[in-house]
Amino acid sequence: MSESPVPHEPPIYRRIADGLRARILAGELRDGDRLPGENALMAEYAIARATARQALAVLINEGLAVPRRGSGVYVRLFKPIRRHGARRLSREQWGQGRAIWDADTHGRPFTVDHLEVARERASEHVAGILDSAEVWARRRRYSVDARPVQLAASYFPAHLVQDSAITLTDTGPGGVYARLGDLGAAPAHFTEEVRARMPQPRESALLDLPGGTPVIAITRTAYTSGGLPVEVNEMVLDSAAYVLQYDFDA
Amino acid sequence: MSESPVPHEPPIYRRIADGLRARILAGELRDGDRLPGENALMAEYAIARATARQALAVLINEGLAVPRRGSGVYVRLFKPIRRHGARRLSREQWGQGRAIWDADTHGRPFTVDHLEVARERASEHVAGILDSAEVWARRRRYSVDARPVQLAASYFPAHLVQDSAITLTDTGPGGVYARLGDLGAAPAHFTEEVRARMPQPRESALLDLPGGTPVIAITRTAYTSGGLPVEVNEMVLDSAAYVLQYDFDA
Repeated sequence: MSESPVPHEPPIYRRIADGLRARILAGELRDGDRLPGENALMAEYAIARATARQALAVLINEGLAVPRRGSGVYVRLFKPIRRHGARRLSREQWGQGRAIWDADTHGRPFTVDHLEVARERASEHVAGILDSAEVWARRRRYSVDARPVQLAASYFPAHLVQDSAITLTDTGPGGVYARLGDLGAAPAHFTEEVRARMPQPRESALLDLPGGTPVIAITRTAYTSGGLPVEVNEMVLDSAAYVLQYDFDA
Repeated sequence: MSESPVPHEPPIYRRIADGLRARILAGELRDGDRLPGENALMAEYAIARATARQALAVLINEGLAVPRRGSGVYVRLFKPIRRHGARRLSREQWGQGRAIWDADTHGRPFTVDHLEVARERASEHVAGILDSAEVWARRRRYSVDARPVQLAASYFPAHLVQDSAITLTDTGPGGVYARLGDLGAAPAHFTEEVRARMPQPRESALLDLPGGTPVIAITRTAYTSGGLPVEVNEMVLDSAAYVLQYDFDA
């Protein structure tokens, strides 16, 4: 076991980023303001262009700033969505006819700006989980504060949900989970698998991601109290827009 | 609400990546094997170099392959660690003197190859959570199958753990949570905040990350049954090495 190689003094680009971040968070630099450019940072700190670029990249990757081609880097404030793993899926939430998204956004306006509902052959992965070759798929994109933040594709066994409102654009109060309840297949247990990776080009385009922003990929499976899997939901989240919170007991 | 723009036919680079992935997972291409190079892919599929590079980048970012400078891209098989949010922190685990890591790796060998224990001033963030300006910090790096996979820094209120084994390199059976129990401050509740972002250069170096690999950053706070925060653990995970799993009820 060797001594830790962890340095305690952060590198210069990070100290510059820390300073800019503090000014943003203190409200001194505001939404839409232009950040000091590479040339200004080079002159002020006597650093190379690559170092100045690195400092700005930190804020871009954190989702606090956004580059505009040929124009500079601008403050883009976006309060991260705190996505609470368990509370948002409690039966109280959808059992009362409330949308699960209300629990995430705490009243911030969100929109579903793309929605596609189709019966189709399941991918091998989804077919394996649901034990069903045919599924109803619900694909949508969610935006918050007019910013796209999440793509989601939910799959349901076709034989279970055929002729239910789950196959319609408007699923009614409480959404798909309330409708699964109507079918005697209310979700009782959830498993979420969380991964992080770089986006596919299609995902970058649909989420309007600046370069170098990873996504969080969540695969959630919903099970009835009897252990029957009734939904697989594959979600792709803009990592700069989200904090996932999970609470549990020892 | 417009029609979904989601295309159903994946782009060519992704189909190439899918094919190579299938060959890796089927065992036809094995750990350490060289993947077809850019020139070979260009000739075989009549594609541009950028497209061939994109196909290989998919496998690199998924952690299935690793580039070696000037030599090509090689299969690097590494079974992802399934990190189970709740089960691994159950009292049964550390109460029996078992290491929390055993729950993650299911017997795969893991090592702590850097460890630093120090009393220090807390960062503003940590001081705010623990309500303590002075902390004991435990910083370590974990490796599995000789590959570094996680950096972790745990902080404890100095007044609480001073003179306990938590300030020593070897914390004894059951580790820090068992020792907190000895102090009458056993963790009863945990909150994990999960984010994804690009690594800092220091993190890239310590985790030996190929370019373009994001990290998962987890901040976990441990609370006693009385609601007292007794530990903040800031973890940075190689995203290609991990799947996080969280289970909960409706």
